[in-house]
Amino acid sequence: MIRINENYSKLAASYLFADIAKRVSAYVAANPDKPVIRLGIGDVTEPLPAVCVEALHAASDEMSQRSTFRGYGPEQGYAFLREAVAKADYAARGCAIEPDEIFISDGSKCDCGNIQEIFATDIRLAIPDPVYPVYVDTNVMAGRTGAAVGGRYEGILYLESTPANGYVPAVPAEPADLIYLCFPNNPTGAVATREQLAAWVAYARRSKAVILFDSAYEAYIRDPAVPRSIYEIEGARDVAIEFRSFSKTAGFTGLRCAYAVVPKTLVAWDRAGKPHALHSLWNRRHTTKFNGVSYPVQRAAAAIYTDEGRRQTRALTDFYLGNAQLIRAAMARLGLPCVGGENAPYIWVNVGRDSWEFFDLLLNRAQVVCTPGAGFGRCGEGHVRISAFNSRESVEAALERIGDALARP
Amino acid sequence: MIRINENYSKLAASYLFADIAKRVSAYVAANPDKPVIRLGIGDVTEPLPAVCVEALHAASDEMSQRSTFRGYGPEQGYAFLREAVAKADYAARGCAIEPDEIFISDGSKCDCGNIQEIFATDIRLAIPDPVYPVYVDTNVMAGRTGAAVGGRYEGILYLESTPANGYVPAVPAEPADLIYLCFPNNPTGAVATREQLAAWVAYARRSKAVILFDSAYEAYIRDPAVPRSIYEIEGARDVAIEFRSFSKTAGFTGLRCAYAVVPKTLVAWDRAGKPHALHSLWNRRHTTKFNGVSYPVQRAAAAIYTDEGRRQTRALTDFYLGNAQLIRAAMARLGLPCVGGENAPYIWVNVGRDSWEFFDLLLNRAQVVCTPGAGFGRCGEGHVRISAFNSRESVEAALERIGDALARP
Repeated sequence: MIRINENYSKLAASYLFADIAKRVSAYVAANPDKPVIRLGIGDVTEPLPAVCVEALHAASDEMSQRSTFRGYGPEQGYAFLREAVAKADYAARGCAIEPDEIFISDGSKCDCGNIQEIFATDIRLAIPDPVYPVYVDTNVMAGRTGAAVGGRYEGILYLESTPANGYVPAVPAEPADLIYLCFPNNPTGAVATREQLAAWVAYARRSKAVILFDSAYEAYIRDPAVPRSIYEIEGARDVAIEFRSFSKTAGFTGLRCAYAVVPKTLVAWDRAGKPHALHSLWNRRHTTKFNGVSYPVQRAAAAIYTDEGRRQTRALTDFYLGNAQLIRAAMARLGLPCVGGENAPYIWVNVGRDSWEFFDLLLNRAQVVCTPGAGFGRCGEGHVRISAFNSRESVEAALERIGDALARP
Repeated sequence: MIRINENYSKLAASYLFADIAKRVSAYVAANPDKPVIRLGIGDVTEPLPAVCVEALHAASDEMSQRSTFRGYGPEQGYAFLREAVAKADYAARGCAIEPDEIFISDGSKCDCGNIQEIFATDIRLAIPDPVYPVYVDTNVMAGRTGAAVGGRYEGILYLESTPANGYVPAVPAEPADLIYLCFPNNPTGAVATREQLAAWVAYARRSKAVILFDSAYEAYIRDPAVPRSIYEIEGARDVAIEFRSFSKTAGFTGLRCAYAVVPKTLVAWDRAGKPHALHSLWNRRHTTKFNGVSYPVQRAAAAIYTDEGRRQTRALTDFYLGNAQLIRAAMARLGLPCVGGENAPYIWVNVGRDSWEFFDLLLNRAQVVCTPGAGFGRCGEGHVRISAFNSRESVEAALERIGDALARP
């Protein structure tokens, strides 16, 4: 008799954004005359940079001619893209990352979700709270946790991000083996300083731990003192895997392209104490269960590394950061403390009340969708995430409506 | 201390096609003056159908305008594609498959590799021999097998495809829980009759097993009596998941699009004997670890379901089948028995000697790359796979060279 992976039964609730979508759909169905503005899910709204569109057209034409047609590419990505990434995103910032340490993929969600497969199931996890749900859920599905008790899974060491620590958790007193970090953070928008990241790298080195560093929002960093890559920290090559995405950098949420960096110096051990290069393990996983990113999409991604591409993507991220500034200012006027929005497209607002209640209030009174903090973990309670991804007009309208809604008794 | 998934250490050898690529690279480096013809890896060579190129251009233009830009799509795929698939690939053939039972993905390799995650680890596997290595390797990595002993993994029931059974294994006497089948077959090119598939469906129903039916090569079936989908067999909806791909149907190996069909009536059980819908489990897995297929690629896939798209893809598969006929005829002249090539793009040649030795002979004497059968499993020994994916000119040249090479002492 065929049996299921029973770890799936431990999953506490359905996927956060699906829950939100359901509530919004129900509201829209009941109130077809009230247009809703979505500042909830972190999806971009502005068109693809022109250089990317041009690259898509050119690559599509290549696919139409036998002499330039491309079939299966390297599972790890084409050299033209891996080399552009290594040069611009790493070498230019003093990080020694080689092109063949970069694995091109179809999304950071996939990479963050799949990476745990190369590790043992009985390791100790450290995961932030609040957190992007994929880190937790994929480990639950793989059997690395116990049951959900009071909204938390047994067997996870939760790294709490709270107003008290400025939403950047310090290294814990106890040991952990696999540590998820995300800066600029989703959902809080907080960034880690060089000193804070250096403390994490030192912790991982002394505990023989691996850090999974999600820097999908790196393109929003404007403060030159804030590290853009964990490899800017001395010694990180030996303890960290980094994830980057073109989704928020260049509006690729619908095109699908990202990459993971797995340095060749990074190891994990077997039970006998023998070290194994994680680069080899990930390469085996990646080549066995994945077949490369669509060729035209890889060309579009490479286009952002040209001079014109940099200008266009900078304009795009500047635009969303302009929205973020307006949101921060509006929250300040409303007396709601917030973090994020300066080096990140998310603003994490301390609303001082139940987060789903606040979500419902904004939806019903202002027809604005935000993301309830509780959906990201216990420490998200009392907060909501507001996304800067929208048109200027919609952001301004949403902020006006929020102001009006909160002024009412 | 962070530890690895030690199941990876059980993997017997590196990935077959990587091994072949290494031998070919070494030969080319040593003999730069001798052009090699590749009939090894199953990669298409002809340009993308014009309807697909047009769809890519149109979708790229949509991405360049705010009003038509698309960000995250549904993880399961856009309705326009799921509906086209349900109508043309299923309803038109009398199979009751609903659009929301279809999960669009970026490749059948990914789907075949990922599907095992929703099942328990201690189930009994039945896997063909010879076989597409992904079915086996992904189960080894997930810990469903013991060690490799003599080229086979402990804990797998191997379904032998041999000259004696016409390369279509009969249902075994013993029970199995998860059964991988692939027709038209990779690597043999053999097809299963309606009666043979019906026997498998009946076996699965009485053993409470699930069949994973890989029909990536369905577009090559020309014999109207051969089933194109397992759902043409009564009762298959309750026991089978089907995988399809646009790779070989429409030359999408470099574009990346495929789909999996998970009927809502299909269940597996937990330890307590409670049934769970696999549709829900796969939906949870798919939405948690995957973020949808590139929008322009989904538009290109949908284009093949237009009248013009059907004509163009039919012309494309007819062209490769023309190559296959030439290969079959040449093998007959050489006195080498073969199967496949009539309803499949692969020809499985019984070479009557060590398959890697024959591979080396063809590479060294004829500068033709085939795939050694032993790479697909123990029963592949004594055979090679020849792929019909190439230009007519290259196939003709390769066959002439093979004839000359085998005529020499």
